[in-house]
Amino acid sequence: MRASDIGEFNLIDILRRLLGKGGGDLVCGAGDDAALFRGRDGGLWAYTTDAMVEGVHFDLSYTSWHSLGYRALAVNLSDLASMGGYGTSYALVALGLRGDVEVEAVEEMYRGMLECGEAFSCRVAGGDIVRSPGGLFVSVSLVGALEGDRYLARGNARPGELILATGFLGDSRLGMLWLAGGGDAAHPCALRHLYPRPRREEGRLALQLGATAAIDVSDGLLRDLGHICEESGVGAEIHLDDIPVSREARELAAALGTDPLQAALHGGEDYELLLTAAEDASEEMAERLPASVIGKVTEGSGVTVLDREGKRVEVSRSGYEHFGEE
Amino acid sequence: MRASDIGEFNLIDILRRLLGKGGGDLVCGAGDDAALFRGRDGGLWAYTTDAMVEGVHFDLSYTSWHSLGYRALAVNLSDLASMGGYGTSYALVALGLRGDVEVEAVEEMYRGMLECGEAFSCRVAGGDIVRSPGGLFVSVSLVGALEGDRYLARGNARPGELILATGFLGDSRLGMLWLAGGGDAAHPCALRHLYPRPRREEGRLALQLGATAAIDVSDGLLRDLGHICEESGVGAEIHLDDIPVSREARELAAALGTDPLQAALHGGEDYELLLTAAEDASEEMAERLPASVIGKVTEGSGVTVLDREGKRVEVSRSGYEHFGEE
Repeated sequence: MRASDIGEFNLIDILRRLLGKGGGDLVCGAGDDAALFRGRDGGLWAYTTDAMVEGVHFDLSYTSWHSLGYRALAVNLSDLASMGGYGTSYALVALGLRGDVEVEAVEEMYRGMLECGEAFSCRVAGGDIVRSPGGLFVSVSLVGALEGDRYLARGNARPGELILATGFLGDSRLGMLWLAGGGDAAHPCALRHLYPRPRREEGRLALQLGATAAIDVSDGLLRDLGHICEESGVGAEIHLDDIPVSREARELAAALGTDPLQAALHGGEDYELLLTAAEDASEEMAERLPASVIGKVTEGSGVTVLDREGKRVEVSRSGYEHFGEE
Repeated sequence: MRASDIGEFNLIDILRRLLGKGGGDLVCGAGDDAALFRGRDGGLWAYTTDAMVEGVHFDLSYTSWHSLGYRALAVNLSDLASMGGYGTSYALVALGLRGDVEVEAVEEMYRGMLECGEAFSCRVAGGDIVRSPGGLFVSVSLVGALEGDRYLARGNARPGELILATGFLGDSRLGMLWLAGGGDAAHPCALRHLYPRPRREEGRLALQLGATAAIDVSDGLLRDLGHICEESGVGAEIHLDDIPVSREARELAAALGTDPLQAALHGGEDYELLLTAAEDASEEMAERLPASVIGKVTEGSGVTVLDREGKRVEVSRSGYEHFGEE
């Protein structure tokens, strides 16, 4: 069986079984946004890695080297943020380079990375540079100290809790479509795609205020909320009308002739946090993070999408349609 | 200027200037085998990453998936070993896969990695799998707790100290040539290439016994000793006759019609430790690691190679010749 036949998520499941769940000082192994281990003093460290491949995760025709560096670090910091924030963190960069890449471009990439690190408490500690004739890749790893002994795991959501999302969803996908069509990199949605903001403070505050589970939106709201459901053994109901979509996203979607909710549900790469919490904690979280309540955790499994009248809506990558209507 | 015009080491120098040397809790930034940072309790962590690219660092026509996994982890553990050993360590793996790779092959790679981790105190904590249509890459990062507050840095060698090497040099290169020619993977030199042994215990003991500087032999004795010289602001003299070459390497070199000393000087990928230490400490290290004394640290700069009569020998990648002889 080939890797392409079973897909990334099934392959990850197979390897997770091989690696095991952790144990001892490895508090949380493969399967969450970050692994967690304990230092000699008992303090928790979150540890994560993400690789980006040219032509798969970025396109240099509309991604500047500066934003590539910024983004490569930001998406990793977002993984730490979704564990409940972090104190200090250290990054290493393994860079695979085609020989024809300009030295100035690589420097610019590092400047973008350093800018992100300065903004979000991360020191870039070094790395490795190798030849990669088949194409560019940037593999960042990140280790960061958690501030206490608690953290947000994907598997902690419980039925009856509410589901919240920080910021807006869909901007990044729309920004990417805009850029791919030759649009200006200064458009707010383009900036959200090129320079995602790791939700470090929001993750930390959510943990303080009693959030239970968290994940960052990298693969799209439906898929990422699906991960929380699987790991927690629960279902989820979300309300289409409550999904936070920005004014800029609505306007850009109209200009592009597409549906902003589709971008919000499937787009991914927003690097907002999806959180779950009991109702009273949710109220304070909604106000203080801030965040939007978009639905609730249920018994059962899978994510159900509801329209304004509470009717179930069937959502696919190509659109969504109402159930039971002619 | 293109990356291929200035080469890997010059590019690394440029990026090191951009990243800086460290400071604060980042005790040692870019430029050693591993970065070092302090946890909240003041304890030191070593942190390193190495990427391997298909067709550049490994060739699947003679590298099994099992050995690829083993080796990808071992070369990173070797970087920690050269900082003076480590207690516990955690690895993450970012894997770039062509779609046509068999799932069983990926599992086999992880089994190799787990076997290495079990043998050398490393937990594989998870990672990332991405599509990489341009070719396979394996990027491993590793964080490991140092056991005390001291470590071995490239920049600590001082004139008058002796230079030591653990194990044998050249086996890996000869093993690779043997494999590339269709030779049996069970040959001792082939095994040394496919399953390098991180010198964890040796690094730890060397630090205890008073070693000053260390580096692992990944790029070849001359180049790696050259790194110690540059970082320490010293020169080095080594004696051809004292370079440890195994019986198997001599025999294989004879069979292949090549010079085992060339493989030892330039071959690389032996993952032995090069160490420096004052004379009295060197004696105990030589006996207890064990290790071979191969030369001494001098004033000046660069590595000088001496023959049996103490005459300087000119060494190039294509061979070596005596100075001042007709």
